[in-house]
Amino acid sequence: MLNRRSALPVSLALFVLLPASQPAAQEPPASGEKWETAFRALPQPANIREYDRRLSARPHHVGSPYGKDNAEWLAAQFRQWGWDAAIEQFDVLFPTPKERLLEMVTPSRFVAKLEEPAFAVDPTSGQKSEQLPTYNAYSTDGDVTAPLVYVNYGRPSDYEQLDRLGISVKGAIVIVRYGASWRGIKPKVAAERGAIGCLIYSDPRDDGYFEGDVFPDGPMRNKDGVQRGSVMDMPLYPGDPLTPGVGATPGTTRLALKDARTITKIPVLPISYGDAQPLLAAMKGPVAPADWRGALPITYHVGPGPATVHLKLAFNWDTKPLYDVIAKIQGSTWPDEWIVRGNHHDAWVNGAADPVAGLAAELEEARALGELRKQGWQPKRTIVYAAWDGEEPALLGSTEWVEAHGAELEKHAAVYINTDSNGRGLLDMSGSHTLEAFINGVARAIDDPEAKVSVWKRAQAGVIAAGTADERAEARSRANLHIEALGSGSDFTPFLQHNGVPTLNLGFGGEDPDGIYHSIYDDFYHYTTFQDTDFVYGRVLAQTVGTAVIRLAGADLLPFEFATMADTVDGYVKDVQALLKQRQAAATERNRQIDDGVFAATNDPRRPTVAPPRADVPPAINFAPLENAVAALAVSAQRYTKALAGAGPQLAQHPDVVKAVNTRLMQSERQLLDPAGLPHREWYRHLIYAPGFYTGYGVKTLPGVREGIEQTRFAEAEAEVVRAAGALEREAALVSAAAADLERVAAPVK
Amino acid sequence: MLNRRSALPVSLALFVLLPASQPAAQEPPASGEKWETAFRALPQPANIREYDRRLSARPHHVGSPYGKDNAEWLAAQFRQWGWDAAIEQFDVLFPTPKERLLEMVTPSRFVAKLEEPAFAVDPTSGQKSEQLPTYNAYSTDGDVTAPLVYVNYGRPSDYEQLDRLGISVKGAIVIVRYGASWRGIKPKVAAERGAIGCLIYSDPRDDGYFEGDVFPDGPMRNKDGVQRGSVMDMPLYPGDPLTPGVGATPGTTRLALKDARTITKIPVLPISYGDAQPLLAAMKGPVAPADWRGALPITYHVGPGPATVHLKLAFNWDTKPLYDVIAKIQGSTWPDEWIVRGNHHDAWVNGAADPVAGLAAELEEARALGELRKQGWQPKRTIVYAAWDGEEPALLGSTEWVEAHGAELEKHAAVYINTDSNGRGLLDMSGSHTLEAFINGVARAIDDPEAKVSVWKRAQAGVIAAGTADERAEARSRANLHIEALGSGSDFTPFLQHNGVPTLNLGFGGEDPDGIYHSIYDDFYHYTTFQDTDFVYGRVLAQTVGTAVIRLAGADLLPFEFATMADTVDGYVKDVQALLKQRQAAATERNRQIDDGVFAATNDPRRPTVAPPRADVPPAINFAPLENAVAALAVSAQRYTKALAGAGPQLAQHPDVVKAVNTRLMQSERQLLDPAGLPHREWYRHLIYAPGFYTGYGVKTLPGVREGIEQTRFAEAEAEVVRAAGALEREAALVSAAAADLERVAAPVK
Repeated sequence: MLNRRSALPVSLALFVLLPASQPAAQEPPASGEKWETAFRALPQPANIREYDRRLSARPHHVGSPYGKDNAEWLAAQFRQWGWDAAIEQFDVLFPTPKERLLEMVTPSRFVAKLEEPAFAVDPTSGQKSEQLPTYNAYSTDGDVTAPLVYVNYGRPSDYEQLDRLGISVKGAIVIVRYGASWRGIKPKVAAERGAIGCLIYSDPRDDGYFEGDVFPDGPMRNKDGVQRGSVMDMPLYPGDPLTPGVGATPGTTRLALKDARTITKIPVLPISYGDAQPLLAAMKGPVAPADWRGALPITYHVGPGPATVHLKLAFNWDTKPLYDVIAKIQGSTWPDEWIVRGNHHDAWVNGAADPVAGLAAELEEARALGELRKQGWQPKRTIVYAAWDGEEPALLGSTEWVEAHGAELEKHAAVYINTDSNGRGLLDMSGSHTLEAFINGVARAIDDPEAKVSVWKRAQAGVIAAGTADERAEARSRANLHIEALGSGSDFTPFLQHNGVPTLNLGFGGEDPDGIYHSIYDDFYHYTTFQDTDFVYGRVLAQTVGTAVIRLAGADLLPFEFATMADTVDGYVKDVQALLKQRQAAATERNRQIDDGVFAATNDPRRPTVAPPRADVPPAINFAPLENAVAALAVSAQRYTKALAGAGPQLAQHPDVVKAVNTRLMQSERQLLDPAGLPHREWYRHLIYAPGFYTGYGVKTLPGVREGIEQTRFAEAEAEVVRAAGALEREAALVSAAAADLERVAAPVK
Repeated sequence: MLNRRSALPVSLALFVLLPASQPAAQEPPASGEKWETAFRALPQPANIREYDRRLSARPHHVGSPYGKDNAEWLAAQFRQWGWDAAIEQFDVLFPTPKERLLEMVTPSRFVAKLEEPAFAVDPTSGQKSEQLPTYNAYSTDGDVTAPLVYVNYGRPSDYEQLDRLGISVKGAIVIVRYGASWRGIKPKVAAERGAIGCLIYSDPRDDGYFEGDVFPDGPMRNKDGVQRGSVMDMPLYPGDPLTPGVGATPGTTRLALKDARTITKIPVLPISYGDAQPLLAAMKGPVAPADWRGALPITYHVGPGPATVHLKLAFNWDTKPLYDVIAKIQGSTWPDEWIVRGNHHDAWVNGAADPVAGLAAELEEARALGELRKQGWQPKRTIVYAAWDGEEPALLGSTEWVEAHGAELEKHAAVYINTDSNGRGLLDMSGSHTLEAFINGVARAIDDPEAKVSVWKRAQAGVIAAGTADERAEARSRANLHIEALGSGSDFTPFLQHNGVPTLNLGFGGEDPDGIYHSIYDDFYHYTTFQDTDFVYGRVLAQTVGTAVIRLAGADLLPFEFATMADTVDGYVKDVQALLKQRQAAATERNRQIDDGVFAATNDPRRPTVAPPRADVPPAINFAPLENAVAALAVSAQRYTKALAGAGPQLAQHPDVVKAVNTRLMQSERQLLDPAGLPHREWYRHLIYAPGFYTGYGVKTLPGVREGIEQTRFAEAEAEVVRAAGALEREAALVSAAAADLERVAAPVK
């Protein structure tokens, strides 16, 4: 291997050969290769299976006895493997149900069961005394009686369709199905529209018998299965509702409950399709639009009524302790540069898939890295492995930790890698686009356990098999597969969107559809019967993330790459420009149809519809600042790439330059933050990536600009163009400065 | 009105002003305007209602007592209104059930009900002794027991998906749902694939509770409702299976039953979703692809088995008499030029919608035309009004009549106009594109009863409301709305596709979804409760078709227009060129994915799929003959348009030229026939329009070329290019000759 070590590192050589717009996958420094190869032999499915069994053996939600027990066991495991592990406690608002009543009062009487039955074949499903009942956390208390209106997925666009049908939800209780948008959006939009209560049910079309056989015969949701989950307004801010922006430590000032803006405005209850069917079957009014109809054997009507329901909810508004497990290995060369990696440990009930399938892989990485240290490996940077508590209610553990350690993270955090539940199938890569080339390089090094090709090759085949002609062509010709931008839905949010830490979120999946999300049936029996039954995808996740950690902790220069970032943001700029044009065209077309009497001419008097109101045609917006900023970033990126190639062989002799460049690189993603935050939600400070205000998990890129256009605040959108451009200009300046550092040590390029 | 009469006819004036590619709607000759205005005041909803009630009062299928009674009553009505009416009888093969048994034998026992119950609210639903049982006509006899395989809609593409799942139907009984393709295609393709029996069921997704409330609470199909219908292989030839190509008159030689190629190869039975659900629920094997799943509250599996069924069918293979009612008004000027208009009178059961809603409008037209004659109106051409028997089993009445009168029709038939069932909503216009401008002109003259605009304007609004941006732009800017090409599914087929008569098919609909097609519930109660309850759309259909008949029968020159025809066929040529390119690209892509291991890399070992076989990449085809022929037709069309404009004022002084040109025009569509017929089905002789060999009702334009490409007979496709080009060249020559006739009387254009 000597000849490879004496040559240019492969990554740098490739940078010279390829155009900047197509950065090659980044290969490991030759010095690290033997360690990562050794590492990948260590993870064992049997261990992962045993962790999964132990951690999911009893319900372990926030504040539960077994949650604390798990945290202590996790810390002990880390310590046993040579890590410096501690539990960090926060105290957070976590409501649990005191009373839950749902009954139909007209046209006939029906009382909802609100209960998931145990099955003999599934041993943990009977742990009734420890299970949280079916509910939505951070629903407000309420006692309401009103007619039902069916609102499909409860997105703003669904209400626009209701408007066309002449139906209002003012004073009504909406019944909405899970899916398409994050659940917390559903009561938020319903309340904005004047509804006084919200029922969220799991339609069998979406994860029940329509998709496959139901539990316990198959993996899908049965008629009594209920999806628990948070309905907090997390697009405003996640974490403890009473301590926005600061860690929920003992001495912290807390808001009064009535001032917590993220608690819902109306009572919300999740129900099964067994409980929903009698309600939906009793509704009349217009037949629901075709794409609103689910798989229940009824005609879906939108109402209002005649079904009227009584919904009564009361909660214990308790403060509960959170136990984050934080384990570290000190870096040998740059201990102040941290590679952070996390997965939550709390579940809604037993959570063998969510979160334990991901957590068990993380644990096995930790064991293997401990083993590797015994063999002599040392990470140059500090590695921090976290097991977060309270992710399910509101990303509580990660958010409070990030808020409590904000200043340290600002200085030290180089990268955050997140996982959550895991399954069989293809590797899903999301995150900061400065890491796209890096993670593609990792994926090329990992063997898929089923397909006998690399997980990268399998992911590429997935795009080719399912993609459009353009996507296929790109998947074949582009050096790297695109990674997706991150919205929300797991613990990466505070790192990326509040603190500007370059982030990756990784996981395998796609081969085993299931319908047990957030139910008592997400347990060891289900996971070992229907999902990654032999835990080979647990092993491959540990191999993937562990390899990434080893490379990140061992690389001399942080493997960030900015040409992809510039190219990706250029795509986002084109997207928002196209969005504006599309909105202009749609508004113009709508007005023309109103003027031409098209709505009147196509109206069916037996099923009357209301013509939409005249639209304000969006004005033109000056996108030039963004276009210029992206161009500047592209130029800087190219300069950096060239400087890196030139400096490569000399860098070993300039540790001060390496340190200086790394220090700059660690601040690169931070440039994309603005301390003032996004319009209307200052907690979110990243100007390129955010969860959507009306999508919840789904990402909005260039969020200020995009949501300004979508929500018809055009002056705001234009101002956001300037702010986002400023962020990109700052990043371009930083990247240029890093390039200048490197240029000082570069050999003349021949 | 004198000044208008002395001016150029409006239609000719417009031809001068507009480019040939955008012919204006053709307006009535001024002399006819007062008559058609008078005509449109005559049709009365109350009359149409009474015809509908009388004709649907009892079941009236082929060979039934009430079918004959209706025919005699219809003839008497025509005579009463001054028409020369007669009944023409044919004797045809019409099988009816002797034995029907369907039972599941494993894994549990279930005997299908095969019976539609009567409802007290619906008086005719209880006419059990006269109702045909639920069956598919022209299914062969059979007694088979085999495992079930679910094959979705049973199209060739569905079997390709089954191949990917590694599942064969060889030796199985297929269960297939109604919809997406014509029912006769389902057993045809199943038999080609080796199945030994076929069950066709109505999934509630397609016309049951998924679409709306079910009968008798609503208009949709209830759990016991069954769609009867023919499964004869009509894409081979329609009409009596024993007398292909000739009228089934008493002396005609008949084939032996065993030699009738259009009878199915395997036994076929239609069933309700009440009968289908236990069978489908008992199936296992792979979960059906997402778009195969219906609305039953089960997980759809494809099998094979373990559900095994026993299907036993036996039929009375009787010859039955058919009674076509033919009524005429002799033309005053050109009695040898015939305008033929028809609607069938037979139904599967009571048929208040299908066919009586259309037939009742035809009758009211006939009454109004009779009335008009009393007021002094005389058609210049002969008008033939037909009420066909036996449409439902196989277009029997129209086909036998066309076959029996082929030589006369060849000489005399100028235009055929068809209607069938009718409802509320938008005007649907289909037919020969030489009549596109003409029928658009008619539609502009008719007021919609609901929207207070013309039916043309409403149809235009429908395209604008539902269309793509391109379709909207075209609907706004093009002089005429496109009319659709005709495949099959009603009595126009023998006129257009066997005899080359320019054809229109007209009807209103789209506002009242229903699920009673071919069931006992298609009756007067249903129609007057859920459909065109006050028969105002019956009136508007009579006004539309009657206006067309008056214009066609009164126009000096037949209002054919060839620029649209050339332009439309040009589009078809581009379609088949694009189809070939798409097939080439798809085959190349598939082979590349096989070579690159994409299928292997994306295979899920728990749900294994079979890679498709390597594809033969289609060769390039010489389309030049078609391109040249279309160009020649476009030139001829332009010459004809110009000559017509020039000749206009002089034509009145040249009745011989008018006669000569009309004689040519009557032969124009005939040029598009080839006596040798289409490949593999010589009965179909039109080289531009045909029903698809594997779609049944759905049209295939340039059928020889298109199906050659689709079915990978590329040499045949290339030969068909030459034949279709020849047909278009013949038409171009005829149109040029007609133009030359006109040029001889033209005034010099200033």
